[in-house]
Amino acid sequence: MNIDDRKSLINVLTGKDKADLAVVDACVFNVYTGELLHNHSIAMKGELIAYVGDAPGEIIGPDTVVINAAGRTVIPGLIDGHTHLADCKYSPYEFLKRAMAGGTTTVITETMEPFPIAGYEGVADFLEALKDQPIKIFATAPAMVSISGNVKIPEREIIKNLLSRADVLGLGEAYWQGVMQRLDEFLPNFTEAMKAGKSLEGHSAGARGKKLMAYVATGVTSCHEPISLEETVDRLRLGLHVMIREGSIRKDLAATSAIKDKGIDTRRLILVTDGVNPPELLERGYMENVLQRAIDLGFNPVNAVQMATLNPAQYFGLDRITGGLAPGRHGDMLIIPNLREIRAEYVISRGKVIARGGELIVMPGRYAFSHSTLNSISIPGKVRAADFLIRAKKTSGQVNARIIDLVTDLVTKEYITSLPVIDGIINVDINRDILKIAAIDRANARGRIFTGLFRGFNIKRGAIASSSAWDSSDIIAVGTNEEDMAYAVNRVHSIRGGAVVCVDGNILSEIPLPIFGLMTDIPLEDLSDKFKEMTGIIKGLGFPFDDPLLTLATLTGAAIPYIRICEEGLINIKDGEKLDLFPS
Amino acid sequence: MNIDDRKSLINVLTGKDKADLAVVDACVFNVYTGELLHNHSIAMKGELIAYVGDAPGEIIGPDTVVINAAGRTVIPGLIDGHTHLADCKYSPYEFLKRAMAGGTTTVITETMEPFPIAGYEGVADFLEALKDQPIKIFATAPAMVSISGNVKIPEREIIKNLLSRADVLGLGEAYWQGVMQRLDEFLPNFTEAMKAGKSLEGHSAGARGKKLMAYVATGVTSCHEPISLEETVDRLRLGLHVMIREGSIRKDLAATSAIKDKGIDTRRLILVTDGVNPPELLERGYMENVLQRAIDLGFNPVNAVQMATLNPAQYFGLDRITGGLAPGRHGDMLIIPNLREIRAEYVISRGKVIARGGELIVMPGRYAFSHSTLNSISIPGKVRAADFLIRAKKTSGQVNARIIDLVTDLVTKEYITSLPVIDGIINVDINRDILKIAAIDRANARGRIFTGLFRGFNIKRGAIASSSAWDSSDIIAVGTNEEDMAYAVNRVHSIRGGAVVCVDGNILSEIPLPIFGLMTDIPLEDLSDKFKEMTGIIKGLGFPFDDPLLTLATLTGAAIPYIRICEEGLINIKDGEKLDLFPS
Repeated sequence: MNIDDRKSLINVLTGKDKADLAVVDACVFNVYTGELLHNHSIAMKGELIAYVGDAPGEIIGPDTVVINAAGRTVIPGLIDGHTHLADCKYSPYEFLKRAMAGGTTTVITETMEPFPIAGYEGVADFLEALKDQPIKIFATAPAMVSISGNVKIPEREIIKNLLSRADVLGLGEAYWQGVMQRLDEFLPNFTEAMKAGKSLEGHSAGARGKKLMAYVATGVTSCHEPISLEETVDRLRLGLHVMIREGSIRKDLAATSAIKDKGIDTRRLILVTDGVNPPELLERGYMENVLQRAIDLGFNPVNAVQMATLNPAQYFGLDRITGGLAPGRHGDMLIIPNLREIRAEYVISRGKVIARGGELIVMPGRYAFSHSTLNSISIPGKVRAADFLIRAKKTSGQVNARIIDLVTDLVTKEYITSLPVIDGIINVDINRDILKIAAIDRANARGRIFTGLFRGFNIKRGAIASSSAWDSSDIIAVGTNEEDMAYAVNRVHSIRGGAVVCVDGNILSEIPLPIFGLMTDIPLEDLSDKFKEMTGIIKGLGFPFDDPLLTLATLTGAAIPYIRICEEGLINIKDGEKLDLFPS
Repeated sequence: MNIDDRKSLINVLTGKDKADLAVVDACVFNVYTGELLHNHSIAMKGELIAYVGDAPGEIIGPDTVVINAAGRTVIPGLIDGHTHLADCKYSPYEFLKRAMAGGTTTVITETMEPFPIAGYEGVADFLEALKDQPIKIFATAPAMVSISGNVKIPEREIIKNLLSRADVLGLGEAYWQGVMQRLDEFLPNFTEAMKAGKSLEGHSAGARGKKLMAYVATGVTSCHEPISLEETVDRLRLGLHVMIREGSIRKDLAATSAIKDKGIDTRRLILVTDGVNPPELLERGYMENVLQRAIDLGFNPVNAVQMATLNPAQYFGLDRITGGLAPGRHGDMLIIPNLREIRAEYVISRGKVIARGGELIVMPGRYAFSHSTLNSISIPGKVRAADFLIRAKKTSGQVNARIIDLVTDLVTKEYITSLPVIDGIINVDINRDILKIAAIDRANARGRIFTGLFRGFNIKRGAIASSSAWDSSDIIAVGTNEEDMAYAVNRVHSIRGGAVVCVDGNILSEIPLPIFGLMTDIPLEDLSDKFKEMTGIIKGLGFPFDDPLLTLATLTGAAIPYIRICEEGLINIKDGEKLDLFPS
C-alpha cells in the first residue's frame, strides 16, 4: 500500500471523498476482539477498508456501490496457510476460479515442486503465474529435503534472493528427519529466513519428546503434521504454530478437534489444506469447506474463523494487510448467512466484489508458462522394458530381497523375503503382490533408472507411470510387467508429463500434466473427471486405497516413513541412508 | 542466535552434551497454550532453552547447575513494550539494576528524547548505552512530532538506517493530531517502518470515530493511550494492539480492567509502563508491579502474564527470541511463589541467574556517554531577567492576554483575561495565580526564548527550570519573578542540565541531569530522595498536583490538549497553529 492509498482512505474518513463500495447493516465479526457486532457497515475505497462501524453517515455517497447485508454476517476473507499449488494437478487459473468463488482471498503455497525439476527459474516462473491475481497468493521458498543426492538444497544466495521478495513469506517445509540428518546443510538457509524475519515452515510428523525439541531448536516456527490431540498440544507447548490440516493428503480435523474442549489458547492454531485434489476442490470447495468442517466438529465459530483469518495473518506477518476487517486492511471479506454457515453469498477481495452466490464476477488471469516449464521431461531417448529388469548377483536359486511394503496408503515398511532368481533375474510375483517400482530421473541425472520391488499396491495387470513424484525430479512407475512400465513411462515423456495407466500396451487412462510435468491447463471439471476415471481404473486393477496417484507420488518423498525410492535406490527415511535391494 | 548455538542445543537434546542450568520440578506456565504444567523442568545451554518437559533425564549432568523449584511457578521474563528510558531521570545502569531484580528481561524504549537535542548521533549514543546488557533493551526510532518548527522530523535515510538495526523494532509513537496535520511529512517514514516489517507505534489519545479510523489508516499498529474500557475496545476493534499503561504518567489499569469481564480476546493487549519515575521504580518496582496490579484488579493471571510476555513478544516480532518458555528461546524467566504472586525469587536472563530474592547476582554495564551527550545545554551566554519580560503593544491600560490554564496536572486550556500594562510590560499576578512560563531553546534555535503566561501551577514564590521538556530541545521555566527564572535557567545551564528550584536567588533544590540534560548517573536511591525533596518543595510553594516536573515537561509536548508552549510561542494542539499571546 502506498502513501496515496492511505491518503485516499483519510479523505473518505475526513469527509473529503466518498467510499467506492460499502457493505451495510451487517453483523460484522471482529476477529481481533472475537465480537459479533450488529448493524455494522464496512466502507471501502480502492482496494482498502476505510471505515468499519455503526455510523458511516456521509461516507456513503450517491456513487458508492452499496450491498445491503441485513440479516447476514461478514467475516474476513479466508486464508490457506499451507498448500502445494504445484502439486494438485490443476493450473493456478483453474484453482483460482474455485478458491475465489468460495471465499478464499489469501493463499500461501509451497514452491518445492518446481525447484528439483526446473531450479530457481522454475520457481520464478511459477511465482509469476501467481502474481497480480484477484486474490493474494504468497509463497514459501523451497527448503528442499530430498532423498536423492541429485536434488540439491538451494544455494544460500537463491534463498536470500527469494526471501527478499515481498511475495515470499518464509522458507518452506523442511522435514525433520532430513534436517536433523544434515544440519550443516540446512541451518544456513534457516538462518536466512530468521534474518529476514520470515517464517520457517516445519514438518515434524511423528517426532516427539527430545527429538521434537531438537527439531524445534533449529528454529522452525510451525508444523502442519499433528494427527492427534496429543501431537497438537505437544507442538503448541513448544512454541510452534500448529496448522491443522484438512485436505486431500490427510484430514486431521476430526482427530485433533478435541483441543477445543481443553481450555487451550487457540491463537496459534491455523487451518490449512496442505493441498486439495481436483474432485475435492470441485465438489467440496476450498477453505470455506475446511472452516465449515471445523465448526461442524464443534469448534466455537469465533475461534474457528480466527484460525482461518487472523491467526495465519499474524503468523505470516500479514496482519497489516489482511486477516481482519479494519481501516487500512485490504477489503477482503465474505458475506455469509451466519457464523455457523460458511457459504459465501458475496466474496470481496481488495475492495472488489469477485464472486456472488458462488459465481465469479472477476476472472483470474491466465499465465503463459515458459517453454522450459512446458518441456520439463528430459530423458535421453526412450526407455525400454529391459531397463526395468532387476538383476541378482547369481543366476539361479533364491535370494533375499528388500521390498517396499505399503502399510497404509502413505506409510511403508521394509519387507524382506526370499525370491527366486531365474537366469540372473528377479521377476514380479503378482500372486504374492510383489510388483516392480521404478524411479526415472527426468531433470537432474537424466534418464537414470532404479527399479525395486513393491508390495501392497496390488494391481494385477499393467503399469502406471506419473511425472508427479514428491521431492524429486523422478517419474515414478509401478508395474506388473516391464513392457507396460516402459510404455507408460514413454507415454508420460511424449505427452510432456502426466499420469498414465497402461495395460497390455493400451493406454486405459491418462492425465496430461505439461506444466513442470505436474499441472495441467484443462478445466477443473474435465480434470476431475479424468482423475476419478483414472482412480477408478487403478482401483479396478486392484489398488486397495483411495488415491493411487498420491500413493505413487509419496514413494519418492523424503518425509513419510520408512522406505522410499529414488533414481539412486532405496532410502531409509529414519537415517537417510541407502538400503541395498539385496540385504546381506 | 547463530548456528553453533542451535547445534549446542541439539547436542544436549540428543544426549551428546549436558545442560548448563536447569530449573526442575516446577509448575511451568506455558504462555502458548495457557496451561500450568506441573512437575516440569526447563534446561538451558548457554543463553538458550534446550528442554521443557517432565522427563529431562540425562540432560541434567553432574556439572549442570540445578535450581529446585518444587512448589514454585515459572513464568517467562517480563517485557515492557513501551517506555521512555531517556525521560525517567535515572541512568540506564540504575534502571537496569532495579528492572533486572524484579524480573523484567526485555524492554522496548522510545528514543524520541535524545533526537531533538542531539540528533542521530544522540540516538546512537543512547542505543550504545543499552547494548550488551544482562537483559535485552530494544528501541523504536524517533517519529518526532513536535510543536516546534526547530525540531525536525528525522530524514527518511536516518529512519531507514535506524530501522535496519536489529535492536530497533519499530518507529516510535507519532501523536495523531500532529500526524494528521502533517501527513506528507510523516507518511514517508511510516512507509519505511512498514517496508521493514516493523511496528509503528501510535498515540491516539482522545481520538474517536472517523478521526480515530483516519489515524489507523495511516498504518499505526498500536496505541498506549486508552484511558477507559470504551477507548480500549474501540482500538482493539480497529486492529490496533492496545498497550495498557500503568506507570508514572498515568495509571490506566483500573479504568480499563473491566475488559476482562467482556469476553473479549486479550491477545492484542499488552501491559506497559510508558515510564516510571524514580521513587516509583525504587519503591514499587517495574513490570512485576504492573503485572501484579493487573492480577490484583481481577485479570485472569493466565491472560495477565500473556499480556506481559507472549503478547508483546508477538507484537514486536520477538516471538522467536523471548516471550515464552520453549526450545530455542532465550532462557528468560522468573521463579515466583505462584501465578498470583509476581515476586521473583530467581530471575534468569539469557540462561544466567541474574537475581535471587531481589538481590542482583549479575551487574549491568555502565556506559560512558559521549562528550556531546554530557554537554547538551547550548545557550550562548547567560540569560537575564529582562529576557523574560513580556511586552505589550501599548504602554498602559489593559490588554487581553492568552494564558495557558492547567486544568489537570497534564491537560491545559486557553484562558483569556484582561491584564494591566505598566510601562509597556505585563507582569505576573501571584494573587490571581498568573505566572510566567518560558521555553528556552538549548540545542536548535539556541538561546531563543519565548515567555508566556500560565495559570494553575500556583506557586507563590521563586521559579523552577528544567531541561527535561517533551518533544523539544527546550528548557522550560515557570516563575513568579524574572530574576529567579533567570537564576534557575542559568543554574540548569551551569550544571549541564537538570531541574532547579530557585527562590529569592537561593537554590532550594536541584537534580543534576547531565546526560542529554535528561538523565543523571547518581544512584537511584539518591535520585529518588532528591526527586521527592524537590516535589515536596514545589508543592510547599503551592503546586496543587503530584509531579511538578512532569507537569512542566509536558508543557512543550505535542500530544496533550490543548495549549502548549515552545521557544516559538504558544501552540494549539488541535490544529498545530500558533496562537498569539495577545488575542485580537
